[in-house]
Amino acid sequence: MAHSKGETQVYLVGAGPGDPGLLTLKGRAAIERADVLVYDRLVSPRLLGYARPDCELVYVGKTPDHHTLPQHKINALLVKKALAGNVVVRLKGGDPFVFGRGGEEAEELRAHGLSYEVVPGVTSAIAAPAYAGIPVTHRDAASSFTVITGHERDGKGVSAIPWGQVARLKGTLVFLMGMENLPRIVDNLVGHGMDPATPAAVVRYGTWPMQRTVRAPLAALEERVGEEGIENPAVIVVGQVAALRERLSWAERKP
Amino acid sequence: MAHSKGETQVYLVGAGPGDPGLLTLKGRAAIERADVLVYDRLVSPRLLGYARPDCELVYVGKTPDHHTLPQHKINALLVKKALAGNVVVRLKGGDPFVFGRGGEEAEELRAHGLSYEVVPGVTSAIAAPAYAGIPVTHRDAASSFTVITGHERDGKGVSAIPWGQVARLKGTLVFLMGMENLPRIVDNLVGHGMDPATPAAVVRYGTWPMQRTVRAPLAALEERVGEEGIENPAVIVVGQVAALRERLSWAERKP
Repeated sequence: MAHSKGETQVYLVGAGPGDPGLLTLKGRAAIERADVLVYDRLVSPRLLGYARPDCELVYVGKTPDHHTLPQHKINALLVKKALAGNVVVRLKGGDPFVFGRGGEEAEELRAHGLSYEVVPGVTSAIAAPAYAGIPVTHRDAASSFTVITGHERDGKGVSAIPWGQVARLKGTLVFLMGMENLPRIVDNLVGHGMDPATPAAVVRYGTWPMQRTVRAPLAALEERVGEEGIENPAVIVVGQVAALRERLSWAERKP
Repeated sequence: MAHSKGETQVYLVGAGPGDPGLLTLKGRAAIERADVLVYDRLVSPRLLGYARPDCELVYVGKTPDHHTLPQHKINALLVKKALAGNVVVRLKGGDPFVFGRGGEEAEELRAHGLSYEVVPGVTSAIAAPAYAGIPVTHRDAASSFTVITGHERDGKGVSAIPWGQVARLKGTLVFLMGMENLPRIVDNLVGHGMDPATPAAVVRYGTWPMQRTVRAPLAALEERVGEEGIENPAVIVVGQVAALRERLSWAERKP
């Protein structure tokens, strides 16, 4: 189905953190409209059910250490499908602009004169802790939060983080996809002066049915994570708010 | 309508940043189920239309400088309505755990033995910049972002921010509700070594139809904001990503 003149050609849509109920209304409407749906590994398969039966589904399965399709090929695919007259939806886990490389996709679309809309999504940086009973901010405990990619890419990532500053921010720290670098993250924080007793947590598959959470003081986090066998996809939360889980956990208590 | 045994008694729901299409599917379902809906100023009135005709709507109109209902009374209201057997929805602008005091509400509910669910929302910290064409992260420009309350409360807030660290984080900074403190925010950043030419932007009413954006180097932001008469509700974005707006703005170009 060719899109009509003046219609948006590409939607960059955040699928949310995993729970299919955390897709936005606008995100669902975009999927329903799509001629071509280009989606990732961390997107709930249930969301594909909103697509029309004749919608072309293209899996580009990005994993932290293995890009099934390299980013420049994803960009080229979006451009090609849109120039051919399709309404294209690029459905990405979380939010398209939170380490989602949505900015690069938007630049490529703009460079080809294609119109697009961004449909922000619920980010796992906030929602995974929330489902584990951890508010990223709290009047008594944190008046800021910092979201950091814990995933090393092209020699950047963890080693490029200004640890001296990060360790003394006082607010909540959230590391996304940081499990491989957990020892370095903890060492850097403690090495730059953060109290080893600072409350911390790791939430794996946050908001999914298989969500699992480990809570420990920062210095004990690696050992506890090892005992529980927690790997990516996971969110690491460091800060006083992590201790609130003891009082506020709810997803594991649901009736 | 009394809730059935075992049913969730209170939903803490993020309404998203303003665009009613950014409500989540789960958020809408919770509103549809509500016997009592307790909502804020920064919630689109369109979302109230999802409530049942017999749902009791309670406006607690929190504004940055004037609480129509103090937080402890909101807490007490949620408890009272839930203990009376109602399914209660607390609908909050953005995300309930991002400066939304959802943590305090959850603590109060738990203290009274009430069951609750948190329904995270799209936060304006990410979505307002996105609608202005500014991705909070970008592979070439920012591998972290920090969200800070720009709103002074009880002598805390801006003065409690560790400026020496924040000014040298290198990632994106997002200040929520910071317009009253804009001069102090800029002075503190520049005073602690941030380049006055750092790209910056202010987005007022991000994602609403009346969204307005001002773009300027950090040092010129206050003057430009004054010329345009920009006030809260607004999001301040500081960092290299702000310069991407020139290429990536889209909401103002929509067909």
